[in-house]
Amino acid sequence: MFAKRAGSSGRAAGAWLAVAIAITAVAPAHAAGEADLAPIRAEVAKRHGEALARLRDWIAQPAIAAEDRGFPAGAGHMARLAREAGFQHVQVIPTDGKPGVFATLDAGAPRTVGLYFMYDVKQFDPAEWSSPPLEARIVDKPDLGKVLVGRGAVNQKGPQAALLAALHAIRGAGRKPPVNLVLVAEGEEEIGSPHIGQIVRRPEVLAALRRSVGVFMPAAMQDAEGVVTVSLGAKGVVELELVASGEKWGRGPSKDVHSSLKAMVDSPAWHLVKALDTLVGDDGNTIAIEGYPQPRPLGAAERAMIAQGAARRDEARTKQQLGVKRWIDDLPWPQANERLVSQPTVNIEGLVGGYTGPGGKTVLPHRAVAKLDLRLVPGMRKDAAVAALKAHLAKRGFGDIEVNVSGGYDPTETAADAPLIQAQLATLRKAGIEPLLWPRNAGSYPGYVFTGEPLKLAAGHFGLGHGGGAHAPDEYYLIESTHPKVRGFDGATMSFVEYLYELAR
Amino acid sequence: MFAKRAGSSGRAAGAWLAVAIAITAVAPAHAAGEADLAPIRAEVAKRHGEALARLRDWIAQPAIAAEDRGFPAGAGHMARLAREAGFQHVQVIPTDGKPGVFATLDAGAPRTVGLYFMYDVKQFDPAEWSSPPLEARIVDKPDLGKVLVGRGAVNQKGPQAALLAALHAIRGAGRKPPVNLVLVAEGEEEIGSPHIGQIVRRPEVLAALRRSVGVFMPAAMQDAEGVVTVSLGAKGVVELELVASGEKWGRGPSKDVHSSLKAMVDSPAWHLVKALDTLVGDDGNTIAIEGYPQPRPLGAAERAMIAQGAARRDEARTKQQLGVKRWIDDLPWPQANERLVSQPTVNIEGLVGGYTGPGGKTVLPHRAVAKLDLRLVPGMRKDAAVAALKAHLAKRGFGDIEVNVSGGYDPTETAADAPLIQAQLATLRKAGIEPLLWPRNAGSYPGYVFTGEPLKLAAGHFGLGHGGGAHAPDEYYLIESTHPKVRGFDGATMSFVEYLYELAR
Repeated sequence: MFAKRAGSSGRAAGAWLAVAIAITAVAPAHAAGEADLAPIRAEVAKRHGEALARLRDWIAQPAIAAEDRGFPAGAGHMARLAREAGFQHVQVIPTDGKPGVFATLDAGAPRTVGLYFMYDVKQFDPAEWSSPPLEARIVDKPDLGKVLVGRGAVNQKGPQAALLAALHAIRGAGRKPPVNLVLVAEGEEEIGSPHIGQIVRRPEVLAALRRSVGVFMPAAMQDAEGVVTVSLGAKGVVELELVASGEKWGRGPSKDVHSSLKAMVDSPAWHLVKALDTLVGDDGNTIAIEGYPQPRPLGAAERAMIAQGAARRDEARTKQQLGVKRWIDDLPWPQANERLVSQPTVNIEGLVGGYTGPGGKTVLPHRAVAKLDLRLVPGMRKDAAVAALKAHLAKRGFGDIEVNVSGGYDPTETAADAPLIQAQLATLRKAGIEPLLWPRNAGSYPGYVFTGEPLKLAAGHFGLGHGGGAHAPDEYYLIESTHPKVRGFDGATMSFVEYLYELAR
Repeated sequence: MFAKRAGSSGRAAGAWLAVAIAITAVAPAHAAGEADLAPIRAEVAKRHGEALARLRDWIAQPAIAAEDRGFPAGAGHMARLAREAGFQHVQVIPTDGKPGVFATLDAGAPRTVGLYFMYDVKQFDPAEWSSPPLEARIVDKPDLGKVLVGRGAVNQKGPQAALLAALHAIRGAGRKPPVNLVLVAEGEEEIGSPHIGQIVRRPEVLAALRRSVGVFMPAAMQDAEGVVTVSLGAKGVVELELVASGEKWGRGPSKDVHSSLKAMVDSPAWHLVKALDTLVGDDGNTIAIEGYPQPRPLGAAERAMIAQGAARRDEARTKQQLGVKRWIDDLPWPQANERLVSQPTVNIEGLVGGYTGPGGKTVLPHRAVAKLDLRLVPGMRKDAAVAALKAHLAKRGFGDIEVNVSGGYDPTETAADAPLIQAQLATLRKAGIEPLLWPRNAGSYPGYVFTGEPLKLAAGHFGLGHGGGAHAPDEYYLIESTHPKVRGFDGATMSFVEYLYELAR
């Protein structure tokens, strides 16, 4: 995932959650309507091997936009998967970047649901993996069961393959899907979805999506204890580099020179430090960019959700997982969670300038770079944030510093009473899970193309099952669960069946 | 060279000079006393092949402290070279780091001269070289002649080998050296000479050096036009890392976490930026460290030297070589040179924090590092500068930021009327060269062990000849010169013979 979303747990596992606590199942495992799905459940079990082979085959063929690897093959593969799952109309859509895939499945149903897929995966270094990242081997994982290890296992091929398996099983049981489907798949999610608008905003795609009740991305929403959090949105994000260089500045050197020259030559690295210093207050947290868009304050309902989540979550365990002793401003746990949900951020992802190896080297660098990410909350737009940053820098005497935006998008939000969300809650409760509601992920995903103008649809993630290691080595997706509250691959597949039937009600 | 010194021209060629302009030879080539050296000159020519083989053999066996490569063999090799050149007493001196070598040559002369050698060389990457760095091949270089290419060629094995060749030639001519010699060699110059004090401050070494008129390091002082600058000192330097970490701070994470957490977790990277910001003024040049040692202002004689040097040097060519359009504060050329010589610096060598690869990565780094070098001028001491920096950081709320000093030393200065310097000027003038005098190098070398307490000796560099590429690929030393004003290896060797005889006068 480009930033961070519900349903995946990478290096920063637990990060976006700020909410998870084990909740005991209370509803009976077999709820109303369950009988109708028995033939499909049988098909899911029967087709387990076939579905797993489909996933393993998909993982074996990675598409990685950052490395220009696996294109256009990845789009062709995605199109074939859609066709085989029953989509009657499947179309590869060129963009200025990597192609997308648009597909529709007309089940003759009264209701239509949108699906958002990504067919690309994050880069990987096989040397860091204990199991080859493209072989999708099945390995034992203590306290979980048998997991499939591979790049894309949970982010996002595994859950997406489970959704496709659900469609195969429904057809295998002699049924039509209970809803019509509109699929939008992109191949650039891991680089910030720079061209998703070119896919979604085509007239035929907009027209198809307009008929839907909303759009969801298949995900593995269960944590290792089985807890599920339903999020009503996500922050927006801007990723950018601030580049100070002697060349653009007109001061300092145009190549690295000996550091003794610092006595007569200006330093682009200091120029960058001085520029950075103006962006945030002394605490490193308060945003000090002049004219920066202001966040919309939390509403009462949002505060209530956060209070509920914070009350049920283990602060000490979270601190321990993150290696954090104090929250910003020494805030108490509930307020720290409010800050997490409600506040925009200006974060330094990386600093790179001059000599970066071991020890020292007496150079005066000609160039220094700060990699920033800016998280945006409702009330803020990406373009306005970037414009304010540029104007601020120019006004403060740093107009020469390049602001190179590499990706990002507006925040996403969906109302709790949207049918897409209500169907999730109903499905989860029928499965014996009382989910936590959460106002928005502190991380980001490009849901804005669905929730923003012109579509203004509901959007979210859904799917039982569990995985981890997104963006990290040994990424995994749970196939056979030994934990009674956590679903394996077939259980995840059934969660999609259950959700589609719930959406059709 | 650890920092930058007279007589070598590395990546930042021309940097320390701020002075070079071709000066026409005015004195006759054969001055007084020349006749006495004819037999030695003949020996130098006769032994050219032998001396070159000695240099090539030395280059083939590098000692690199940063890589712990070539120790203790490098010290043993140095000791053997001294013994073979006629030093009667040769002693390898252990230190807490790499061993040094102390040697004395008693010629029964009334006067004694100290020699400072380094037997280590800078790291190198053979892939960047056009000629293998340890093979010391002879290659043609346009406008210069035949040069020897190898790591250490000019920094500092070539000039040191020429001095040894001078001793062999004197003995070959049936003479004793005109002065007694005291040699101090170290193997850690390239990492900032952290243990040179443990060599020089041993009682027997101090006693031997106290008898000397001063200490010089063999160097290749001629630029490509033959110009020679005699420098009366060098700035001191401190190399250090400022490290901000969540662990030491007690705020922020103890490992990299997802950047979305920036909304509730403090950022060590911002903490570092805020700390750095306090060290210099808005111009990035004015030092703002509270209680920092103050530089001694330039004296009239120093100003005169700088004015003379600046007037005779090509500002436009210097700017072009460095890729610089404006000096600090848009200073005119003479004032920029005064600033170069007189001002201490706080320079950022490197910034390293979080994700430093291509593109972005949404992390909140747990650690960020600024690599700094601080240049010191007379009136300032290394220990006082470090103490002031630490106190300043503590007072401003950054006491958690580690100040890890990796090397450095006090500034060095020698009076123009010291016999060591006057003998240089006389030797150069007899060779037809009118040298430029310069108050001090903007770069640094560890001459403080000789010029500071307790010895308070004169110290400097000396040697005709030319080389380049110190610390860079294709480092070279001129062997056979095609330029009438630039000396090759035998000419460099003779410059040491001439200097030793001049020192004996």
